[in-house]
Amino acid sequence: MEKLTIIKVGGKIVEEPDSLAQLLNDFARIPGHKMLVHGGGRSATRIATQLGIETKMVDGRRITDSEMLNVVTMVYGGLVNKNIVANLQARNINALGLTGADMNVIESHKRQPNPIDFGYVGDVDKVDGGRLAQLIDSGIVPVMAPLTHNRQGNLLNTNADTIAGEVAKAMTPYYNISLMFCFEKAGVLQDENDESTVIPHINAADFKRLVDEGIIQGGMIPKIQNALEAVDAGVKEVIITKATAIDGSRGTKITNN
Amino acid sequence: MEKLTIIKVGGKIVEEPDSLAQLLNDFARIPGHKMLVHGGGRSATRIATQLGIETKMVDGRRITDSEMLNVVTMVYGGLVNKNIVANLQARNINALGLTGADMNVIESHKRQPNPIDFGYVGDVDKVDGGRLAQLIDSGIVPVMAPLTHNRQGNLLNTNADTIAGEVAKAMTPYYNISLMFCFEKAGVLQDENDESTVIPHINAADFKRLVDEGIIQGGMIPKIQNALEAVDAGVKEVIITKATAIDGSRGTKITNN
Repeated sequence: MEKLTIIKVGGKIVEEPDSLAQLLNDFARIPGHKMLVHGGGRSATRIATQLGIETKMVDGRRITDSEMLNVVTMVYGGLVNKNIVANLQARNINALGLTGADMNVIESHKRQPNPIDFGYVGDVDKVDGGRLAQLIDSGIVPVMAPLTHNRQGNLLNTNADTIAGEVAKAMTPYYNISLMFCFEKAGVLQDENDESTVIPHINAADFKRLVDEGIIQGGMIPKIQNALEAVDAGVKEVIITKATAIDGSRGTKITNN
Repeated sequence: MEKLTIIKVGGKIVEEPDSLAQLLNDFARIPGHKMLVHGGGRSATRIATQLGIETKMVDGRRITDSEMLNVVTMVYGGLVNKNIVANLQARNINALGLTGADMNVIESHKRQPNPIDFGYVGDVDKVDGGRLAQLIDSGIVPVMAPLTHNRQGNLLNTNADTIAGEVAKAMTPYYNISLMFCFEKAGVLQDENDESTVIPHINAADFKRLVDEGIIQGGMIPKIQNALEAVDAGVKEVIITKATAIDGSRGTKITNN
């Protein structure tokens, strides 16, 4: 099987022109099949504020009421996604921006309102890996916005890490998948204030221990859970690192044993 | 050759939930290969106003400065396009939302700033009809937003009528094209206040005469010019009519002789 590299980048990187340009330069240089999954939360919050719409968060996750759904549809599906696509085209990468609704690539259902009503948030049911593989084999580089749909006409806001993980899992029949979660730090750190303390390798047992010890906490917990689920489902490697390290030589590698 | 129906719908129809639902019901019933091109100007103006960005128009055309480019990228490429895609998926139509940047389907250049500086507005250079045909033949229904790109990383605002006309022309090697421009009225009217006076047929000579007589004026002039160019380039039929008449039985038919 051929290799497919899936890069997930968070909002901060794709929302500032300089860091976006650097990321896209690095991404363009990745050899072989590839795919980008992006966030955009900071821009969504900024545009919402400008529109007089209040951003409500619970446990670091956005509450998506119908007004906020319009904002994230504009920002994730339009502003962020199309700017990435145009800028990849300028680098001779044949990018195609997608939400889960496009070609029905990611179907989801609206999350139950209990215990917390997150609003128009979708939990992924099905990724059409075959359709994505067909595009990728024809030279297309999918650029995925963190939006899905329920096939009943509703777009739904879906966490970008989740999209990356679910897409990676769905592509395992077609490619050897290397999945990379990029964030602000060099990897999962033993000491969160010291970039030189990257933990090079975490497996399921390590994860449990590091959570118990309080070294892994907050938003890093679901990120690593996603990663562990992905490797369990056959994704060859998952790496957590800085966006400037997407050549894959550094960061924290997640494996299931 | 098989038939391809290309429907262009203006902002008003796609921006109100009831008329959009009706349009998508009608569109879903069109047999065979099809494609939708949409506008979104009214929503762009509304969102711009909410963001405190002034909308400037010259001769009925929007001036697209960098702030307005962000607005139209959000509204055309995100809000309007992805809502149409999700609502077509709910009708079992395998829609794919596209700007010209996606898969490089429409390349353009920024219009010269003289005599009027329209800002980030793109005039179409090239449509990749082969790529669109490949998608359509695989069962996809493209939904085109009125945005193009210059392959240098800039998205550009491009009139939706122009997109429809240029795409129709580029698809003539692959299909028998039927192009329909939908707007508020039943067709080109002899008396603009009387919906029963639809002119059933206009050719190039008729057009010249009707413009001279003042019967065709304003925004209808470029629309019919687009239509005449399309039939000259081999588009089989162009019809101008109401969105509620996309079964093709009524309206004004444009031919080159």
